[in-house]
Amino acid sequence: MKHLRKELWFETKKRRQLINITPELEKSLRESGIKEGLLLCNAMHITASVFINDDEPGLHQDIEEWLEGLAPEKPHSRYRHNVGEDNGDAHLKRTIMGREVVVAVTNGKLDLGPWEQVFYGEFDGMRKKRVLVKIIGE
Amino acid sequence: MKHLRKELWFETKKRRQLINITPELEKSLRESGIKEGLLLCNAMHITASVFINDDEPGLHQDIEEWLEGLAPEKPHSRYRHNVGEDNGDAHLKRTIMGREVVVAVTNGKLDLGPWEQVFYGEFDGMRKKRVLVKIIGE
Amino acid sequence: MKHLRKELWFETKKRRQLINITPELEKSLRESGIKEGLLLCNAMHITASVFINDDEPGLHQDIEEWLEGLAPEKPHSRYRHNVGEDNGDAHLKRTIMGREVVVAVTNGKLDLGPWEQVFYGEFDGMRKKRVLVKIIGE
Repeated sequence: MKHLRKELWFETKKRRQLINITPELEKSLRESGIKEGLLLCNAMHITASVFINDDEPGLHQDIEEWLEGLAPEKPHSRYRHNVGEDNGDAHLKRTIMGREVVVAVTNGKLDLGPWEQVFYGEFDGMRKKRVLVKIIGE
Repeated sequence: MKHLRKELWFETKKRRQLINITPELEKSLRESGIKEGLLLCNAMHITASVFINDDEPGLHQDIEEWLEGLAPEKPHSRYRHNVGEDNGDAHLKRTIMGREVVVAVTNGKLDLGPWEQVFYGEFDGMRKKRVLVKIIGE
Repeated sequence: MKHLRKELWFETKKRRQLINITPELEKSLRESGIKEGLLLCNAMHITASVFINDDEPGLHQDIEEWLEGLAPEKPHSRYRHNVGEDNGDAHLKRTIMGREVVVAVTNGKLDLGPWEQVFYGEFDGMRKKRVLVKIIGE
């Protein structure tokens, strides 16, 4: 069994931001030399997400507004977590969006559908945070 | 390491529909000959879901109404994504339900709890769409 | 390829309860002798969850209140599933929180970020229920 571990680092300019990381995952996969297996990609922080959806700016605005409706950032005092913190909402937003994706590796490629793109979803940014990539297979 | 890749195709009669795909996954697993490992099953489209829950019609109606409450289909104009599209809601519904499941394979069987059934969740149907099954192990 | 399968059993005192199971997973990993691979941990019941977030009591109260807002337990009659059942809400709460986590195994350790802790989320407790741990690798 082959395996590869890699960290991807991000420091977003905005509190909330979505970044397409599909090219980084393809690069990691090429480095691994793995042809058949599974790729796990997960946020290593609990206020961020890795998820798969469409790379379409209108949808990304819809997601932003929808998450603000389901778990509003403000007032910060609405969350008990926000004692010396202000990111209670980010823990909940990331729960909706999910921590991780598992992607099949087939013939040395990410086995994604035609519109599937992998995103890093930052909900408490403007500081350095990490994503883990782990690939196993042969 | 053994591996199997398979696509399952669906064309639902309704825009939104839930289909129990557990028997298809069991069949794929038998074909693979894998006794111990992991099975990944994911929607290859970003307006559909693969998830695990109960095969109980009342619950399925509850899920339909609940998702309509959290991410209503109409008016289509409520989503910025809906410029030449009408499926903004489906992207959000699938986000709630999840893209994928990973199921343990033990002694050549799907290692599911007594009520666990795997479903394809279609939220923008009436056209051909695919699910990916990838099994790795030995 | 090495593999380990283990069940963790729980019987919570309350209907809804969050339990940090990270130490149990570390123990299972040590037992497996696996150094590089993937660990799957999933609820075997469809009214419970395994998820990753912060071990912070304020956040756990926020999650409880937030889930009650998104999928209230009562009145039980609000769910069609609740014919001879009263746990319709638990099926939906677990959907939000997720069924499973996949964690990378690196150098014989769970490859978690600094604040990542794995939780069992019980939404219909006070009876015996199980979590599955499956580890594959080498």
